[in-house]
Amino acid sequence: MSTRDRALDAAHTSILEIGATRTTMVEIARRSGVGRTTLYRHWPDVTALFADLLTRELTAAVRLVDPTPRDLDHLTDQLCAVADAIRTDPLLEAIRRHESDLLAEYLLRRLGASQRALIDTLRGVLAHTLGQDRDPATTATMLYLAVQGAVLSAPLADPPLDPDTWRAELHRLVRGYLRP
Amino acid sequence: MSTRDRALDAAHTSILEIGATRTTMVEIARRSGVGRTTLYRHWPDVTALFADLLTRELTAAVRLVDPTPRDLDHLTDQLCAVADAIRTDPLLEAIRRHESDLLAEYLLRRLGASQRALIDTLRGVLAHTLGQDRDPATTATMLYLAVQGAVLSAPLADPPLDPDTWRAELHRLVRGYLRP
Repeated sequence: MSTRDRALDAAHTSILEIGATRTTMVEIARRSGVGRTTLYRHWPDVTALFADLLTRELTAAVRLVDPTPRDLDHLTDQLCAVADAIRTDPLLEAIRRHESDLLAEYLLRRLGASQRALIDTLRGVLAHTLGQDRDPATTATMLYLAVQGAVLSAPLADPPLDPDTWRAELHRLVRGYLRP
Repeated sequence: MSTRDRALDAAHTSILEIGATRTTMVEIARRSGVGRTTLYRHWPDVTALFADLLTRELTAAVRLVDPTPRDLDHLTDQLCAVADAIRTDPLLEAIRRHESDLLAEYLLRRLGASQRALIDTLRGVLAHTLGQDRDPATTATMLYLAVQGAVLSAPLADPPLDPDTWRAELHRLVRGYLRP
């Protein structure tokens, strides 16, 4: 395993065990056995490391999508499964709670690498599935923004949406939007 | 006009003229003629004042919604018009760019007063319009989260969605979700 992956794995475990706030460069060095100087050669600070960790986690989620779904129902099922996996990811939940400024950057200012990968994947799958009257790039973008809102802001719901209800409503939203 | 409203108006004008970052309590006191001591009696800091300003702006947007729409098409048109007004609001745009931590709080941690008002309004309107098979509260929540994502993260789209495309796609999303 590369030094980089060893450090990311240690950070991942540390965030889940002691929280994002207490996962410092010192802590990551201690857990991974990677020297601090080496860590700082890869990442200027712990926030940059968290951003890479998030990218790695979300990129893994993207790979779950079958690039050639049978039809719109199959595609909708898959997208909702990926969205649900991201919504319930403990790493993302820890970052959402303790590093909300990091996420705010990617919600309000610019797309990160994993967001681009998600939208690109969506566009490819939609090009394969949508009818001729829809533009896959436009549809992928709007769908992504709406689903991202439903995923990241889901814990705000008050009263909360229980997981089954959230999944059922997201399915309805995605399926309704993709309907010819 | 109340002292409070005078200060909020001055802050609003200041943000549009010189930006959120340079709109300090000193600047708001100077523009409004309200003393600094009085300002601090109303708000502990300028971020709290911005939050109130945002609530006032969004509450005004909510009032544009007709509480008894004729049908789902009429309701969809109205929701999209309100969403578009919020998306293009210069105040919100300035806060989005320069006070993203303030918005992150309401995207990732808790609902603010105006978000609750928006969801409550949606729920009332949906109770009037949806069929018996849909729960208005659940539908209002999911619709709100998705539309909020489409509104606040719209500027991230790359390539950007032009305003007409954004409106058309949002309309399709909302109408598709509300379909019986």
